[in-house]
Amino acid sequence: MRGNEEMEFLLEASDSATRARAGRFRTAHGVVETPQFMPVGTVGTVKTLTPAELWEAGARIILGNTYHLYLRPGLEVLQAAGGLHRFNGWNGPILTDSGGFQIYSLNDLRQVNQEGVEFRSHWDGSTHFFSPERVVDIQRVIGSDIMMVLDQCIANPSDEAAARQAHLLTLDWAQRSREHFLRQKPLYGFPQLQFGIVQGGVYDHLRKESVRELVAIGFDGYAIGGLAVGEDARTRNRMTELCTDLLPENRVRYLMGVGKPEDLLDAIARGVDIFDCVIPTRNARNGWAFTRTGKVVIRNARYRSDFAPLSADCRCFCCTHFTRAYLHHLFRVKEMLGYRLLTIHNVHFFLSLMRQARRHILDGTFQDFQNRFLESYFTHQEKGR
Amino acid sequence: MRGNEEMEFLLEASDSATRARAGRFRTAHGVVETPQFMPVGTVGTVKTLTPAELWEAGARIILGNTYHLYLRPGLEVLQAAGGLHRFNGWNGPILTDSGGFQIYSLNDLRQVNQEGVEFRSHWDGSTHFFSPERVVDIQRVIGSDIMMVLDQCIANPSDEAAARQAHLLTLDWAQRSREHFLRQKPLYGFPQLQFGIVQGGVYDHLRKESVRELVAIGFDGYAIGGLAVGEDARTRNRMTELCTDLLPENRVRYLMGVGKPEDLLDAIARGVDIFDCVIPTRNARNGWAFTRTGKVVIRNARYRSDFAPLSADCRCFCCTHFTRAYLHHLFRVKEMLGYRLLTIHNVHFFLSLMRQARRHILDGTFQDFQNRFLESYFTHQEKGR
Repeated sequence: MRGNEEMEFLLEASDSATRARAGRFRTAHGVVETPQFMPVGTVGTVKTLTPAELWEAGARIILGNTYHLYLRPGLEVLQAAGGLHRFNGWNGPILTDSGGFQIYSLNDLRQVNQEGVEFRSHWDGSTHFFSPERVVDIQRVIGSDIMMVLDQCIANPSDEAAARQAHLLTLDWAQRSREHFLRQKPLYGFPQLQFGIVQGGVYDHLRKESVRELVAIGFDGYAIGGLAVGEDARTRNRMTELCTDLLPENRVRYLMGVGKPEDLLDAIARGVDIFDCVIPTRNARNGWAFTRTGKVVIRNARYRSDFAPLSADCRCFCCTHFTRAYLHHLFRVKEMLGYRLLTIHNVHFFLSLMRQARRHILDGTFQDFQNRFLESYFTHQEKGR
Repeated sequence: MRGNEEMEFLLEASDSATRARAGRFRTAHGVVETPQFMPVGTVGTVKTLTPAELWEAGARIILGNTYHLYLRPGLEVLQAAGGLHRFNGWNGPILTDSGGFQIYSLNDLRQVNQEGVEFRSHWDGSTHFFSPERVVDIQRVIGSDIMMVLDQCIANPSDEAAARQAHLLTLDWAQRSREHFLRQKPLYGFPQLQFGIVQGGVYDHLRKESVRELVAIGFDGYAIGGLAVGEDARTRNRMTELCTDLLPENRVRYLMGVGKPEDLLDAIARGVDIFDCVIPTRNARNGWAFTRTGKVVIRNARYRSDFAPLSADCRCFCCTHFTRAYLHHLFRVKEMLGYRLLTIHNVHFFLSLMRQARRHILDGTFQDFQNRFLESYFTHQEKGR
């Protein structure tokens, strides 16, 4: 074994009314059923939660940020630990991004050239250099189940020339990333997988070219990048569909950085399999809970003496143990337990949404499910949404 | 039933070499074995932890702060919830202090007179008035198993005149508190208990007079107040012993606001039964872990690649699941999970210390245990203690 096993996506069902699909794929740390959502564990930890709580909330794969992990705890510690799984105690699958998005979003002083990208640490201002090859090496040390190639992400809207330049650089880096990946062995005795990333801004011809060239290189899965960075939902949906149209059926499709519940269902209907986003966890810490009847802003005074659970039909640890009044109090006095409990609830909500979507795809009732979900979700929204 | 059952302390064993004693007492929410330590749940929550985690860490009784609970969530919410147990989900015993200490420590603008004390909320500056009777009423609404009388706490050292004045006011308030308590019924169908508080500064004759007068009034238990507020350990120990000498054997003795592990053992050796202190929880959030071989300051760079548990012989959730290196990382990147895990460990450490002390008192080996503990604890301390 080279240690680089090609990953096959097993298609279990395709929806007849939409492009939604249900399937599964295997990683070294477990099988992932799709559609699936990955909670974000920025520096190795999905904020406030233990691995056991994550699992109980329904998480089956999490995302780690290469940029953050490279800076803290750093490669020396991760290698000494035997990789991220050993370090943080999460024994399920982990996908790591390439650091490209953080360099784009956190660094005003980044310098991109053909060779790679120079950036400064947001912790201490120290200078670092990521090349496509270096990013593969770093993810070998992290020991993620799925690694992403280094790409160049640009804001939407960008003009066609800028989008083309980023697309061509991303393709060149993808080729180098794949070659470097295939030359190497993993460090911890289990195989890792590598996904390519489609770029091309909001330009149809660039997106198509990006997909075709990436597929020609050949990856274990394909991500759609450069979306959820400023464009409207209609454009995002069009770009997504344009990509899934051309991507091979037997490879997993990952829409990076998306999104809100309605966005996830939109993308699933267009043939996307997996997602990551900070929304459930970050919004939880801001006191915003997701429910089937829309958002609940728990700091709102109306919840002061509301002794019902956050969501009556929810089976998560938060909803089965605590009241809105208590959660309201915890946020009012800034107790960490409040951030924890809403995080558990929101992660559970997103993963439950994925499980329901999957079941309805398998049953052939996805579109009806999507319509009913959206109706309930938007009809009952708290005012001020 | 009046709802005010007198509480009997059942003495199980007295140490022959010290004044240490092991016993138990009954509250409406369960029996408490002594010596015992109460983690502090300031606004109803032992910071970062769920009730189930508290129980797993060994907590069998927790403390809530009347001052804080009165301000947030407030009496209206607590009464609507059916008391603090229903509100926060902790079904074990709860003791509430009287608010006296917070008014003393948080309020520069407090005004004390014979009737009571006026103070300003540290949240919004609003003005409030606590009388001895009002504090009983508030604790009826909170529904704690054990309520404390309003006392006047002063700093150590204070001159004899100030200490005498505070002592006499505290006694007058104690009499009023007890009368008001006995005239009333609890609100939620279970009996509550009331403890008096000994004051008297560091003056032997005032402490003795305070104990005698309080015992003449007759409470369900007695607290030693006005210590751990600036005096040295020798003085605190002398005052403690002077009080326990005079307190009745069949009532529980509570040393308020103490303390570090060595202080707890000192006080147990002088006949104290129960304690509360923010040290295990507050220090945890500052990255200070207690172990049998002294403190571990987890942010210290020496733990960066230390893949041993925090404490090799500890069975807590933190030590059985995570390494020092991971905890060091969590604190370095300010992840809330780090505060949680160290809180679990420290609470477990303090409660395990109490269980061990109890077992050694029952076995007649307390003094040897205390000596061995202190030797290990101070010999191996991290440098810079």
